[in-house]
Amino acid sequence: MEPTVGHRPSVRLRDCEGRMVASTHLYRDGNARRDALIGWYRTIRQLTDRLAEPLGAEDQTIQSMPDVSPTKWHRAHTTWFFETFVLKPHLADYREYDPAFGYLFNSYYEQIGERHPRPQRGLLSRPTVEQIGGYRSHVDAAMQRLVETADEALCNTLAPLVELGLNHEQQHQELLLMDIKHVFSCNPLRPAYASAQAPGPGSIPPTSWIHFDGGLVEIGHDGTGFAFDNEGPRHKTWLEPYRLANRLVTAGAFLEFIEDGGYETPAIWLSEGWATVQARGWKAPLYWEEIDGEWQVFTLAGRRALDSREPVVHVSYYEADAFARWAGHRLPTEAEWETAATDLPVVGNFVESGALHPRPAAGDGAGLQQMFGDVWEWTMSPYSPYPGFRPAEGAIGEYNGKFMVNQMVLRGGCCATPPGHTRATYRNFFPPDARWAFSGFRLADER
Amino acid sequence: MEPTVGHRPSVRLRDCEGRMVASTHLYRDGNARRDALIGWYRTIRQLTDRLAEPLGAEDQTIQSMPDVSPTKWHRAHTTWFFETFVLKPHLADYREYDPAFGYLFNSYYEQIGERHPRPQRGLLSRPTVEQIGGYRSHVDAAMQRLVETADEALCNTLAPLVELGLNHEQQHQELLLMDIKHVFSCNPLRPAYASAQAPGPGSIPPTSWIHFDGGLVEIGHDGTGFAFDNEGPRHKTWLEPYRLANRLVTAGAFLEFIEDGGYETPAIWLSEGWATVQARGWKAPLYWEEIDGEWQVFTLAGRRALDSREPVVHVSYYEADAFARWAGHRLPTEAEWETAATDLPVVGNFVESGALHPRPAAGDGAGLQQMFGDVWEWTMSPYSPYPGFRPAEGAIGEYNGKFMVNQMVLRGGCCATPPGHTRATYRNFFPPDARWAFSGFRLADER
Amino acid sequence: MEPTVGHRPSVRLRDCEGRMVASTHLYRDGNARRDALIGWYRTIRQLTDRLAEPLGAEDQTIQSMPDVSPTKWHRAHTTWFFETFVLKPHLADYREYDPAFGYLFNSYYEQIGERHPRPQRGLLSRPTVEQIGGYRSHVDAAMQRLVETADEALCNTLAPLVELGLNHEQQHQELLLMDIKHVFSCNPLRPAYASAQAPGPGSIPPTSWIHFDGGLVEIGHDGTGFAFDNEGPRHKTWLEPYRLANRLVTAGAFLEFIEDGGYETPAIWLSEGWATVQARGWKAPLYWEEIDGEWQVFTLAGRRALDSREPVVHVSYYEADAFARWAGHRLPTEAEWETAATDLPVVGNFVESGALHPRPAAGDGAGLQQMFGDVWEWTMSPYSPYPGFRPAEGAIGEYNGKFMVNQMVLRGGCCATPPGHTRATYRNFFPPDARWAFSGFRLADER
Amino acid sequence: MEPTVGHRPSVRLRDCEGRMVASTHLYRDGNARRDALIGWYRTIRQLTDRLAEPLGAEDQTIQSMPDVSPTKWHRAHTTWFFETFVLKPHLADYREYDPAFGYLFNSYYEQIGERHPRPQRGLLSRPTVEQIGGYRSHVDAAMQRLVETADEALCNTLAPLVELGLNHEQQHQELLLMDIKHVFSCNPLRPAYASAQAPGPGSIPPTSWIHFDGGLVEIGHDGTGFAFDNEGPRHKTWLEPYRLANRLVTAGAFLEFIEDGGYETPAIWLSEGWATVQARGWKAPLYWEEIDGEWQVFTLAGRRALDSREPVVHVSYYEADAFARWAGHRLPTEAEWETAATDLPVVGNFVESGALHPRPAAGDGAGLQQMFGDVWEWTMSPYSPYPGFRPAEGAIGEYNGKFMVNQMVLRGGCCATPPGHTRATYRNFFPPDARWAFSGFRLADER
Repeated sequence: MEPTVGHRPSVRLRDCEGRMVASTHLYRDGNARRDALIGWYRTIRQLTDRLAEPLGAEDQTIQSMPDVSPTKWHRAHTTWFFETFVLKPHLADYREYDPAFGYLFNSYYEQIGERHPRPQRGLLSRPTVEQIGGYRSHVDAAMQRLVETADEALCNTLAPLVELGLNHEQQHQELLLMDIKHVFSCNPLRPAYASAQAPGPGSIPPTSWIHFDGGLVEIGHDGTGFAFDNEGPRHKTWLEPYRLANRLVTAGAFLEFIEDGGYETPAIWLSEGWATVQARGWKAPLYWEEIDGEWQVFTLAGRRALDSREPVVHVSYYEADAFARWAGHRLPTEAEWETAATDLPVVGNFVESGALHPRPAAGDGAGLQQMFGDVWEWTMSPYSPYPGFRPAEGAIGEYNGKFMVNQMVLRGGCCATPPGHTRATYRNFFPPDARWAFSGFRLADER
Repeated sequence: MEPTVGHRPSVRLRDCEGRMVASTHLYRDGNARRDALIGWYRTIRQLTDRLAEPLGAEDQTIQSMPDVSPTKWHRAHTTWFFETFVLKPHLADYREYDPAFGYLFNSYYEQIGERHPRPQRGLLSRPTVEQIGGYRSHVDAAMQRLVETADEALCNTLAPLVELGLNHEQQHQELLLMDIKHVFSCNPLRPAYASAQAPGPGSIPPTSWIHFDGGLVEIGHDGTGFAFDNEGPRHKTWLEPYRLANRLVTAGAFLEFIEDGGYETPAIWLSEGWATVQARGWKAPLYWEEIDGEWQVFTLAGRRALDSREPVVHVSYYEADAFARWAGHRLPTEAEWETAATDLPVVGNFVESGALHPRPAAGDGAGLQQMFGDVWEWTMSPYSPYPGFRPAEGAIGEYNGKFMVNQMVLRGGCCATPPGHTRATYRNFFPPDARWAFSGFRLADER
Repeated sequence: MEPTVGHRPSVRLRDCEGRMVASTHLYRDGNARRDALIGWYRTIRQLTDRLAEPLGAEDQTIQSMPDVSPTKWHRAHTTWFFETFVLKPHLADYREYDPAFGYLFNSYYEQIGERHPRPQRGLLSRPTVEQIGGYRSHVDAAMQRLVETADEALCNTLAPLVELGLNHEQQHQELLLMDIKHVFSCNPLRPAYASAQAPGPGSIPPTSWIHFDGGLVEIGHDGTGFAFDNEGPRHKTWLEPYRLANRLVTAGAFLEFIEDGGYETPAIWLSEGWATVQARGWKAPLYWEEIDGEWQVFTLAGRRALDSREPVVHVSYYEADAFARWAGHRLPTEAEWETAATDLPVVGNFVESGALHPRPAAGDGAGLQQMFGDVWEWTMSPYSPYPGFRPAEGAIGEYNGKFMVNQMVLRGGCCATPPGHTRATYRNFFPPDARWAFSGFRLADER
Repeated sequence: MEPTVGHRPSVRLRDCEGRMVASTHLYRDGNARRDALIGWYRTIRQLTDRLAEPLGAEDQTIQSMPDVSPTKWHRAHTTWFFETFVLKPHLADYREYDPAFGYLFNSYYEQIGERHPRPQRGLLSRPTVEQIGGYRSHVDAAMQRLVETADEALCNTLAPLVELGLNHEQQHQELLLMDIKHVFSCNPLRPAYASAQAPGPGSIPPTSWIHFDGGLVEIGHDGTGFAFDNEGPRHKTWLEPYRLANRLVTAGAFLEFIEDGGYETPAIWLSEGWATVQARGWKAPLYWEEIDGEWQVFTLAGRRALDSREPVVHVSYYEADAFARWAGHRLPTEAEWETAATDLPVVGNFVESGALHPRPAAGDGAGLQQMFGDVWEWTMSPYSPYPGFRPAEGAIGEYNGKFMVNQMVLRGGCCATPPGHTRATYRNFFPPDARWAFSGFRLADER
C-alpha cells in the first residue's frame, strides 16, 4: 500500500483497556523494536479471539445475509492476510497451513486468484472453529519467528505490512460484532452476545449549534502515523461557513420523525430512498420492534426498551438524509466534519467501554460531543478518491480504491470500533441503503 | 391420520442391523405391548442420533438451499412431532421443553400456528446442538413415562400416533442424509460424511425386459400394517400390457446420453425440462464433476471416480424423461411399477448396508432387480389423490394431501432409506426439477 | 402429425354465424374437394381478421406479460404456420414473404430453428400491423394457388396439414381474445374491446347432482373427424361411481367463499396454492375489482357490476380446488367429465354468440348444463400422455406432448372458443396458477 | 423552481436549423414579449412532433426496458407538464383534456399524486397516438390563448414557468431519441429511425494535453439566462493543476482496450463495475455487434461498420473509468471540465446536424475539441448538491434534487441534444451502469 510505506506507525495505539501501548520504539533499531512489533501483534490478535469467545461453534458458522460474514470466517481471513502478504513472501521456509485456505479465505483480492463466493461463506461447516483456532496459532507462531529472526532491513519491510495487517484485523473486529448482531437478530430467540448495563438516569443537553468559518482548508492524512491509502493525499478544499449540531440525533428525535409520518412522506426522501423504503417495508430503524405499542431495540446485550436519549443507530443514509430534510437541516460534508474534528482528542464510547451500543450524550457536555465513538456518522459526501489519489501497485492496492462508487462516507468510529483504530481523517464507507453497521448521524447547516 | 387409525402396525420393522424387530405383540394387551412400543420407539430414535454422530456442531447448523434443512433442525422437528401430537394432548402433567420451540420446529402445519420460515432454518445458531440433544432426551423420557403409565384405552389411542411419529422420523432420517450430502457438496473441501467401500469388480447383467399382462388390477394399500394416507384407498385401475427393464439405468448408459449430446438436444426434452436445463446450466447429474477429462462423483464417502456400472442417481424427472425418450422408451407409471413389485420381497440396498450410494446390479440376477433400495425410481405419474382419497381431519391431515400438484411419484426406496420404512405401495414425490434426493429410474414400454 | 393423418376432417365445422359448413366433400375427389378446402380456409382465416378489426395498431402491438402475445404476433404466427409446414414443402416456386419472419414468428418449434424470445414479442414495432396484413394476403394467395393446382395425391397430403393449420389458427383466435383482455385490463382506462349486452333478468336452477355409474369405460378420440394428437389413443379406464353438478359454479357462490374467508384459510388450499395466494396477494378472481364496496368485473365489453348468476371465470386451478374443498366436494377427473359429455351435443356459449363472457345457466334447464362453452372447466387431472401416446415425428410432434408436466387438464370450451373447434375429447391445459384463460369449474363427488 | 424565478431566459436559443431565435425581447413589456414567448413555445413543441414523425403508431407505443419510455408517452408527458404547472393554475376556464391523463402522464412528481407505474408505460395502447396528437393541440391552443390574454403581471409569472416547461421538453426530445434507439435495437430487424450519412474520409488529430492551472475557481450558474436548479448556486472550489485530453476517446482506442483484454481484467475495474460486467456479460459498448469478425455498430440510421475515428459512445461510467485506469489516466471532475469549458462557444454536433451519432474530431482542430455535442462526457464526480443548494418548494422542487445519490455527472451535451439546450454549467446525470444515453468520455490527469 504505497501511501503508507515509510509512514511511521501510529503512536496512538491503545490496548484493550484503553491504555496507551508504547509504540514509539517501533522504528528504532534492534530488539526493542522487535519486541514492540510482537507485543502489538499479540495484543490485537488476542482481542479478536476474546471477541469470539462468547460465541459457540454454531454461532461462528452462520451468514445471515450476503453482506455478513461468519465469525470464524473473519478469524480465518485476517489470519490469511498475514499468511499471504507477510509470511509467504518473507519467511523462507514457511509451510502453508492448508493450501485450500487461500481459496476459502481470500475476500476480494482479484489479483491473488479465485476465491469462494462471498454469499456462500455460510455454507462452510469445515474447516471447523477448532481448526481455525489451529490456523491462527500456526500463523501466530510463524509471525513471531519471522519478526524475531528478521534483520534490520527486513524489519523495515515488515513493519508497515504488519501495521496494515493489524489495522485490517481491527476492521474485522468491528465487522465481527456488526455481523453477529445481525445473525442473532434473525433468531426469534433474540440471543444476547454479552451482558451490558443500560445507561443510567440523567438528561442530555438540548441541540445547539457550533459554528465554523470555513475558507480554504486542508483535509486528509498528513503522513504522521498510520493511515489507510484512501485518507490521502492531504489536499486543499474550500468550505463556506457552516455549523454542526453539538451532539448526535437521538432515538427520541427519530421517534418524532416516525410519529410525524416520516416513513410515509415521499417529499422528504431521495427518490432511491423512497423506493427502498417501499420495497423493504421500512417503518423504523433496523433492530427496532414495536411490541404491544412499546418500542423495543435489539442490542448486543439482547432486547430492551428504547431509550429516547440514546443516539439513533442502524439507519441508512436514506433515513439520515430524510430526517435531516424533515428537520429543515442537512448532513455535514466529510470536509466539514473533519475540519471540526481535527483538533479533538480521539476519545469516546469505543469497544473497550463494553457498552456495545451508543450512549446518551453527557448532560453537562459543552461544545461538540460524540464526534468519536458511539456511531459512525453519515456525511453527505459520496466516497470518491481525493485529488491525486493513486492506489498501490499489486493486490494490496485493491484495499480501498475499487469501492469508490455508489457509497457514502461515514466518520468518527462507533461503539464497536477497537481501541486506537480510528482518527479524524478516517474514511469509512457504506452503500446508502446499508443499515447493519453502527451508523447514525449529526445535523449540519449553512451558518 | 384417519386412514391409519385401527391399522395394525407394520410387522416388517427391522432394527439398524436389518434384523426383524418383534412387533407382533404391539396390539396385544398389557406390558408386552408397552415394552414393544417403547423398544420400537427407542430403536428408531437412536438411529437418528447415530446418523447425526459423524457431524459436528457446525455441520448440523447449515442450510445450503431452501429445500435443505439443517441436521439439528431434523433432530428437533421430529422431537417436536411427538411433543405436539402425542405428549401435549395425552400426558397430563407434561411440561413443554421450551415454548419457543413450537414456533421454531413446526415444519408446515398451518393449523398448529405460525412457524419459522423454511428458508431461514439455517439462521438458527441457537438452540445449540447440545440443547437439541437435551430436548430429545426430555421428550424421550416423557414418552417412556407416558407409555409405561398408559391404560389399555390410552394405549389403543397412542399406538397409531407413535407409529406415525416413527415413520415420520424415518422419513427425516433419509432427508438428513440427502441434506447433509448437499451441504457438503457446497464446500470446496468436499468433506466425507462416512467411509464406505466402493463396489468390487464384476459385471452387471445386460438390459432385458420383463413382461406384464396388465388388465384390471388393484393398487394401493390394503390396510394391513402401517401406511401413509396417500397410499390408499386401494382401488381398481386398468393397465394395458407392458414391460419393465430388469434393472436401473446405469451411470454408464447416462454417460452415453451425455456424449450423444443429450443435454443439447431440445427435441427429447419436455419444454419445461429444456428451459430448466438452460436456466441452470445442467450438463450432467447433480454431484458429477468432470475433472481433467475424467468424471468424478461426489458421494457421502467423498469424491471418487464414477463407476459406469452403478445406477445413475441425482437426476431430475426431466432428465429421466429425456433419457427415456432418447432411448426410445418411457418411464413406468406408478400403477405399472406397483403391480410388478407387489409380490417381491422388500430387500435391497437400504441405509443399513452402509453403502450410502446405489450399487451395481448383481451380475447373475434374474428377473426384476433393484426394485427396492438403491434409488427412488421416477415414474411418469403425477402425484394425485387416489379415487376416494380424503385426508384426515385436523393438522395431521396436512401430512400428504396438500402437496398433490406439480410433483411426480417415485417408488421403491433408496440407499438412504431406513430399514422397514418402504413397501410396494409407498408413494414418494418430488417436483420434476428436484435432484438432491437419491433419485434414478428404470425404463418401461408397451409390450 | 401422425395421429391425424388419414382422419377425415371434422364435419362439425360451422361458420362464424354458427351455420354448419359443408365439409362432407372434403375428401371426395376433384374440384369439389378443392373448393371445400379453400372455402374452409377462407372462413377461418377471415374470422381471425374480424377478431382483430376492433384493435388499432397500438393495441395489436402490446404484450402485457410473458404468457400473452400481441394480436399482430398471433396474426403473423398462424400465417407462418401455413408458410412453414404447407407452402415451403409443397409449393415449388413459393417465394417466402420475408426471410426474417421465420425467426420472428416461430413460437416454440425447436426443430425449426432459433426464434425470437417469447417474453420479447412486445418489443417488435416492426413489422407493422399493415405489413402483417400484407403477409397474410401473400400467404392466403399462395395457399389458394397451391390447393387449386394440387393433383389428387398432393390433395391427400395437404388436407390433413391444412386441417391442422386451421385448428391451430382457431386456438390462436381464442388466445387473441384472452390476451387482448389481459392487455386492456392493464390500462387504467379499462378500454372495451366490443360492446355486448349484459344478461337479462331471470333465475338460474339450484345445484343438483347428476349420477354416473362408472365402471370400465373408454375415453379418448376414436379417429372420426379431426383431433389433436393428445386426444388419443382411445383407451380403457376404470371409474368408480360418481356424480357431477348440473351447472357451473357461479360468481355468487364464489363470493360466499370469499366472504367466508376462503382466501385467508390455509387449510383448504394446496400448499403451492397457498404460497401463490400469498405471493401474489390474490383476494378474488382475476378481473374482479371491489370499488366502493361493490364488486365489479372487467369484461371484453368493459367494466360492469358482477352478476351473481354468471359462472365464475378467470380462476386458477388452485382457487377452483380450494373452493371445492371448502364446499365439501371435489373437481371431476377428465375421464369423468368426458364420459358424462360424450353423448351431449356440442352447443353452448361460444365466440359467435358475441357475449364474450360466460352467461348464467338457463333457469329451466334440465340435466347437465354448460358442459360446452362459457368457461373451460378445470379438472383434477394432471396433463399426462394417454397410454400408448406417441407424438409425431419432426417439428409438428412438438405440438402438444412436450407440455405434459406441471399442467392441469381443462375441458369443454369457452365463450371465446371459435365455432366447431371443441369436442368431448378435447384436452385443453394450463399451469395450475394460470388465470387469464376463460377458466371456471364444476363440482363433482363420489356417488 | 425557485432558483430560476427572476432569471432572464436564455438568449442562446436557436431554432431547428440552428439559427438564433430572438429572445432578447422576452422580458420586455407588451406584445413583443408575448409574441416571443409564443414563438419560442411553438418552435420547441414543433420539434418534438418532427422528431416523432418517422415513427408509426406501433413504434411510439413500445417500452423496451423500465428506463425507456414510449415516444407517445414523452409527447403526452411534456404536454401534461404545461397543463399541470401552467394551464390549470393560471388559465381560469381551462378545461382539462382528459382527467385520466393526470394519472397516466405524471412521471415522478409525488406531490401531484398517484401515477401509472413507470415500468408499465409500455402497456398503454390507449390513448392512441392520434389521441395524444389531439391532446397536444388542445394544450397548445390553450397555451396560446393564455399568453395572448395575459396581463403584465401574469406574463411575469408565466415566463419562467414556460421557460422551464420548454427546457423540460427539450430534455424529453433527447430522451425520445435515446429511447427509440433502444427500442429499435431490440428488434432483430434493426430498423433505422432516419437516414444519415456516415462521416467522410479524413484523419483525426493525435491525443494531446491541454493544461490548466487550477487554483480557487468558481463554478455553477451565475443567474444569467436559464438554468436548472441543480446548476447553482455558483460557488468556490479548489482545483489542483490538471490537464485534459484535446478530444474524446475514440472507438478505435476502445477497440484496443477490448483487444488487450480490458473486459477480462478485474484489476482495472471498480468492484461494482466488475460485478456488472460479469452479471450482464458485457464484452463491448452497447450497440456494438461482432459479426463474422467485423465490428458493427447500431445507429439511429441502422447498422453499419464501426468507424475507428468516431468517439466511443454508449459506455457506462464503469467502462469509462476502467478504460482510463487501463490507459494510465483518469476522468475529469466536473469542476475541471466546467472550468475548461466556461469560455468556449457552445457549438458542436447537436441534434440539428442530423448526424444523430458522434462524429470524428476535426483533423486540423487545435485546442479542446468536442467539448459540446457528440457525446455526454462522464466525469468522476458523483452527482451531489452544490454547497447551499436548496430545491424549490412544492412539486417542481422534485425536478432534480431527489436524484442526488448513486449517480455520476456528465457534461457537454450530445448529438441528440436539441439546439440551445446545453451550456457549460449544465449537469446531466446517470447511474454508473447506464449505457443507453449517448455517453462517452475524455481523459484527464494531474499536470
